[in-house]
Amino acid sequence: MGAGIIGLCSAYHIKKDNPNLSILVIDRSSAPGQGDTAKSVAAVRDTFTSEVNRLFASSTIDFYKHVQSELGFNLNLELIGYLWLVSEKQFKGFEAIEDGMRKQGIRFRTFEREELTQLIPDLVLDPASEQSKIIGMDSIFKAVQGLDCGTVSPESIAKFYENEFKKMGGEFQFGIEAKSIRVDAKNRLDLPGEPYVWQDKVFRGVETNHGYISAETLVIAAGSRTPLLLDPIGIDCFVKPKKRQVFQIRGSSLDRLMTTKGFNEQNTVPFTILPKGGVYFRPVRGERSFWVGAADDIGRPFRFEEEPIAEESYYTYNIYPILSEYLPCFANLRPVNSWAGFYDINSLDSTPVIDRISNCILATGMSGSGIMKADAVGRVAAAVFKDESEAVLFGGRRISASRVGLTNRSVGKEEFVL
Amino acid sequence: MGAGIIGLCSAYHIKKDNPNLSILVIDRSSAPGQGDTAKSVAAVRDTFTSEVNRLFASSTIDFYKHVQSELGFNLNLELIGYLWLVSEKQFKGFEAIEDGMRKQGIRFRTFEREELTQLIPDLVLDPASEQSKIIGMDSIFKAVQGLDCGTVSPESIAKFYENEFKKMGGEFQFGIEAKSIRVDAKNRLDLPGEPYVWQDKVFRGVETNHGYISAETLVIAAGSRTPLLLDPIGIDCFVKPKKRQVFQIRGSSLDRLMTTKGFNEQNTVPFTILPKGGVYFRPVRGERSFWVGAADDIGRPFRFEEEPIAEESYYTYNIYPILSEYLPCFANLRPVNSWAGFYDINSLDSTPVIDRISNCILATGMSGSGIMKADAVGRVAAAVFKDESEAVLFGGRRISASRVGLTNRSVGKEEFVL
Repeated sequence: MGAGIIGLCSAYHIKKDNPNLSILVIDRSSAPGQGDTAKSVAAVRDTFTSEVNRLFASSTIDFYKHVQSELGFNLNLELIGYLWLVSEKQFKGFEAIEDGMRKQGIRFRTFEREELTQLIPDLVLDPASEQSKIIGMDSIFKAVQGLDCGTVSPESIAKFYENEFKKMGGEFQFGIEAKSIRVDAKNRLDLPGEPYVWQDKVFRGVETNHGYISAETLVIAAGSRTPLLLDPIGIDCFVKPKKRQVFQIRGSSLDRLMTTKGFNEQNTVPFTILPKGGVYFRPVRGERSFWVGAADDIGRPFRFEEEPIAEESYYTYNIYPILSEYLPCFANLRPVNSWAGFYDINSLDSTPVIDRISNCILATGMSGSGIMKADAVGRVAAAVFKDESEAVLFGGRRISASRVGLTNRSVGKEEFVL
Repeated sequence: MGAGIIGLCSAYHIKKDNPNLSILVIDRSSAPGQGDTAKSVAAVRDTFTSEVNRLFASSTIDFYKHVQSELGFNLNLELIGYLWLVSEKQFKGFEAIEDGMRKQGIRFRTFEREELTQLIPDLVLDPASEQSKIIGMDSIFKAVQGLDCGTVSPESIAKFYENEFKKMGGEFQFGIEAKSIRVDAKNRLDLPGEPYVWQDKVFRGVETNHGYISAETLVIAAGSRTPLLLDPIGIDCFVKPKKRQVFQIRGSSLDRLMTTKGFNEQNTVPFTILPKGGVYFRPVRGERSFWVGAADDIGRPFRFEEEPIAEESYYTYNIYPILSEYLPCFANLRPVNSWAGFYDINSLDSTPVIDRISNCILATGMSGSGIMKADAVGRVAAAVFKDESEAVLFGGRRISASRVGLTNRSVGKEEFVL
């Protein structure tokens, strides 16, 4: 269930491990990767302190590199870097964890204020306006670039997995929306009201808007819709949906920022995170625009909507004041486009939940970092499918599947939160 | 918010620690303890392997003993025991953890088959009917009695805390239903759409069916309604509501079971758990009846309803077949009464969640064992209120408050699941 990036990766890896298995992927959209996958800003990074996050992200990025450079399938993977513009306090937090990450092979470069002024002439290091004081905007003390980070095209990644899955004989049906999962007794007695409390349970299939589909195994990769399927059958997947918004900004005043040199071979400004409010922007060179966002936490409801809409006022009052103070080249520009989707947030540890419950496999809880972890998630889902205790990630590193399961979860605490 | 057992204990302990503080407890009912507290089967036990569960339950039971015997306030606490009738396999599971619990001072008594036959002549140790084979009912291999376990009257406990809270000057308003929590900026600018993503958040008060109530600190002890208040403001409390049902059974064929000797000084059968389906019964001597139930897991939705109703068919098909095979004295008896309420289930570790988020304190996630842990929960909530790192439980034992918080949670795994 679900032909987003997670459903595609799971289907691909399960099919690869089980070539004779008949796999049907259903999705409510008309093509793969058209839900929240398509709405992502699609930035990928390997800068995590938790081993699970690091393994998931770095092996997935490595796989994308492999697909692009060795298999010759263009994913628009551009390692333009992540650039954290940090306050003095934030930098101290970074210093405390930097060494551990470097030892794990994560590559960083640090920039001093002087370099930043030179490289990004549009940047205001010391906001001093009345507004910036009200907001509580700190001076930029340094910048930290994650070098093996960048951006991808989710559509291309979806296309890659779709093609490969189809080549192996995998099937899709689109326009099919999973409505409810049918729970039944493992040993049915054909009595009213089964399954009973004393019967072992099994999941027979799924009711859809086009009738019932039965299956030997169900794989739920429905993103933020997962609780809509699991709550009714009494399974807690530790995921709640939260709306996230992206605003597209375009203007000639941004040309210099777009063609920033000194950070990457693409000669563009990295995916950049400002020191306040989590405001970030991603250059989209093909569109000559920037995608801009900021994740709100308390106050933003956990609530699913069928057709989420981006709120212009969210840009105006939450993002713009910060963005335009640090980077006045954004001043007076309004969004030319905007969209909204949902994160499937696991508030517990912001790490994927992959597990088996009877004959149902879950892959959910991406918490906003699904695209950068998708290949690893698919491999763990395939291991869980075969009841293997370990998954072998791209590059040969291994991870115990139970670490991301519900029962014996052990993902550790992520300390890289700038 | 909430004058159930958890709200009452929290209000009492916060008021006790802060005598000059003005505390208002609101509840949608017309009196304390009228929600899910009143619907509980109100059995209490100290038989847990996890330190947190054990500390919470045993200190709370000790406090109830103290209230009843030393303060002379009758809580109808009767230590009739918990009696697990176990299969051979279940007993092996128990043996693996028994020693650890005994070392922690938890008192057990084990009964052999011969003793059980003698003490409970109504009991069928080896179900052999066609039906029992279909259900997969095991022979009873032994029984394990938790000695410092029993039953209480939730109404009396609620009354005790209500009285004490009022004596200290605490106030109640009933018929007031919390509808939504008002999130605001800590430093308000009086601009449209506050709070913004870059503002620190504070909770100003609560909208109710009788207008707005502002408060310096909010304490949410709303049981299964907690997510209804927290989801809209984007806080995940790791709790989902699940319906639970109780059926009252009465009949002269149960008289002998009701007056079972040899287990306790009350000369009644303990609160008893059968080896299959989690079916349990509690003797209610004052009513000359038994309360019977069984907790269903997969298949029972996580879904809140305003007026949950017990389903007679749930008794007929889920409980009765097991109950009447092991104890034919229940044969042909139908429920004379039934009711349903909600557990506030924390699927992660079935242990309370007590934490502070800004000026809002949560006490939720009782998962069906709220009454037996309530006093300890109230003391931890009071410690969290004062930003103290440790709570002192009744009897002087201490617990770090952060162990049951959301961020650095460390409650361990409960292994006593028979």
